[in-house]
Amino acid sequence: MEYPSKLIEEAVNQIAKLPGIGKKTALRLVLHLIKAKDENTYALTDALNKLRANIKFCKVCHTICDAEMCSICSSHRRDRSIVCIVEDVKDVMAIENTAQFNGVYHVLGGVISPVNGVGPADLKIESLVNRLTNGQAEIKEVILALSPTMEGDTTAFYINKRIREIAVKVSVIARGVPVGGDLEYADEITLGRSITGRTLFN
Amino acid sequence: MEYPSKLIEEAVNQIAKLPGIGKKTALRLVLHLIKAKDENTYALTDALNKLRANIKFCKVCHTICDAEMCSICSSHRRDRSIVCIVEDVKDVMAIENTAQFNGVYHVLGGVISPVNGVGPADLKIESLVNRLTNGQAEIKEVILALSPTMEGDTTAFYINKRIREIAVKVSVIARGVPVGGDLEYADEITLGRSITGRTLFN
Repeated sequence: MEYPSKLIEEAVNQIAKLPGIGKKTALRLVLHLIKAKDENTYALTDALNKLRANIKFCKVCHTICDAEMCSICSSHRRDRSIVCIVEDVKDVMAIENTAQFNGVYHVLGGVISPVNGVGPADLKIESLVNRLTNGQAEIKEVILALSPTMEGDTTAFYINKRIREIAVKVSVIARGVPVGGDLEYADEITLGRSITGRTLFN
Repeated sequence: MEYPSKLIEEAVNQIAKLPGIGKKTALRLVLHLIKAKDENTYALTDALNKLRANIKFCKVCHTICDAEMCSICSSHRRDRSIVCIVEDVKDVMAIENTAQFNGVYHVLGGVISPVNGVGPADLKIESLVNRLTNGQAEIKEVILALSPTMEGDTTAFYINKRIREIAVKVSVIARGVPVGGDLEYADEITLGRSITGRTLFN
């Protein structure tokens, strides 16, 4: 497509690099910004620049935070004996939203994926091993809360092999039919796992 | 939703102000930017800042451009006797893509819409009247290429009333069944107009 202005072309190309945004959507966003007030654009670019310049990662659990240590790791009310291993900050937010977990986290920053060139060394696994070795007396359980995909399972398998000797107890989040889902529409693998992983009715 | 960082919250809020982007998508984009290289974010914000600071509008047709006058208005190869009236820069780009029009444009910057508080004074209609009055000898035809919506029709009606005395000829783009569309699925109004507006088979 030909653009009436080099400035628009450059802005469209930059926005279209974001995931899930094509050139048509990018053009719509650019034209929206041009129509809107100046301040809107500057507030947006300012927020992104500040984000990029000042964002920090918690030195204990590697989640995104504003300080040296995140609010969860530095809280007195969290149970430090349970460490939940997740792929991403999004997973921390999702688990926090459930209000069912009071332990601490360890964010890997991805999962092992040979297709995408991500190996164990690219993740915070060594840091997890150190954390468990040093805090052996305190940490009683490690929960593997990774996505139930091929990559997630591979990563869980690898981590379990690495930490089995150190950690007291390694658990994995339950797999089964989702709440509110119809049995009829559950795939065979999920349904099969929900049967083999059945629990006592209480 | 609670964010682990104020910086993320601010960035998400700013991105979610863009049309068609909700908080979940905004968070995904922000986490993508954090994961990607620093330069990506700075290239994006730089392009947007430059766009906002340097974007100009053509003094003749009010389309977006980099100079005082756009490439179409300043071209020697364009036919200045036909002026095509459109709502937006997007429409100029769409018509240019067809390669069926060799005249010049006049961008209104919107359509009359009482619901959104847009009146004739908010559009470049006065500028169009001046352009036609001053260039009366040169301009032979005005094409109304507005969207076939209630607002577009209202705007076309208003403009026609204003320029009927000045312009030699006022025409409107054809309405009918879209090429490649199935007659069966065309709505009655479109199909009705395609019959009343039929042309000789050649």
